Amino acid sequence: MDLLKHIRNVPDFPKKGIQFKDITTLAKNPEAFKYACDQLVEKFKDIQVDKVCAIEARGYVFGSVIAYLMDAGFILIRKPGKLPANTIQQSYNLEYGTAVIEVHNDAFSKGDKVLVIDDLLATGGTAEAACRLVEKLGGEVVGIGFVIELTGTLHGRDDLKDYNVISLLEIPVEEE
Amino acid sequence: MDLLKHIRNVPDFPKKGIQFKDITTLAKNPEAFKYACDQLVEKFKDIQVDKVCAIEARGYVFGSVIAYLMDAGFILIRKPGKLPANTIQQSYNLEYGTAVIEVHNDAFSKGDKVLVIDDLLATGGTAEAACRLVEKLGGEVVGIGFVIELTGTLHGRDDLKDYNVISLLEIPVEEE
Repeated sequence: MDLLKHIRNVPDFPKKGIQFKDITTLAKNPEAFKYACDQLVEKFKDIQVDKVCAIEARGYVFGSVIAYLMDAGFILIRKPGKLPANTIQQSYNLEYGTAVIEVHNDAFSKGDKVLVIDDLLATGGTAEAACRLVEKLGGEVVGIGFVIELTGTLHGRDDLKDYNVISLLEIPVEEE
Repeated sequence: MDLLKHIRNVPDFPKKGIQFKDITTLAKNPEAFKYACDQLVEKFKDIQVDKVCAIEARGYVFGSVIAYLMDAGFILIRKPGKLPANTIQQSYNLEYGTAVIEVHNDAFSKGDKVLVIDDLLATGGTAEAACRLVEKLGGEVVGIGFVIELTGTLHGRDDLKDYNVISLLEIPVEEE
């Protein structure tokens, strides 16, 4: 299946010059959504996975399905102030600015094999921050999966070079 | 399975007097997460469902799995400004304040049978607003499913009395 035709390109979102890759059109199509989730599971099927974590909010759309299908627990990584119990935080650089994500400090146990899922790899900053959260709590990142990888000038894989990174769909971009 | 023992009660979150029901402890447990998702599907298995929609961000954790399992499309309902293409909006009253949610204006087609999923039914305001969004675009709400229903003084079902509402777990609360 050609997943690319289910991705909507939205020019100038969230700001001028950004060609936003919209996965809501993929999620809305039952066959495309199922195919994307199944393909992500297929890529990691030979790896033991105890927990799948994903970054709010689009990451949850794929991450929770993959956790279900792999019989793993699902861990919510969120923006600051959203998680109710005690958390640890990690700051990171975004394509446009800086940000912080956090996770409950009992989300991972020492030795947990953890798969990180997000919808899109751009600069890699968010995914790297998620890996730091896993590792701070003693977990081991056994893989990072994306639906879309933006290739070209963003060099998103550079920060993730120590990890097993896969993506379903590569889309070349030029920074403006 | 007793799902209640997988729900963490967090006092005074997000503000003093609220006993927050934390589903991250449920999602983290593979058996409990699978059971909750399977039970939600079981409750609606005799109903035709074209699309499952859920409200950001915790709703996605369950809604996307249910969409996958029911071979339905998944629709993201979000806070304002997060969806990249053209949207419609709906305002509603929260337990503590007012808010707005929105959805892409091509998310539902006329006649779509739509299941609304969220993690928790409190006052029912968010779910009712989600139903309005579905109906504004010509969809039909065929069911509303929650993991947790707060019963007692919140009367969350009152606003949803025209709909087929189910929940997996009832937790009595007293407003302070």
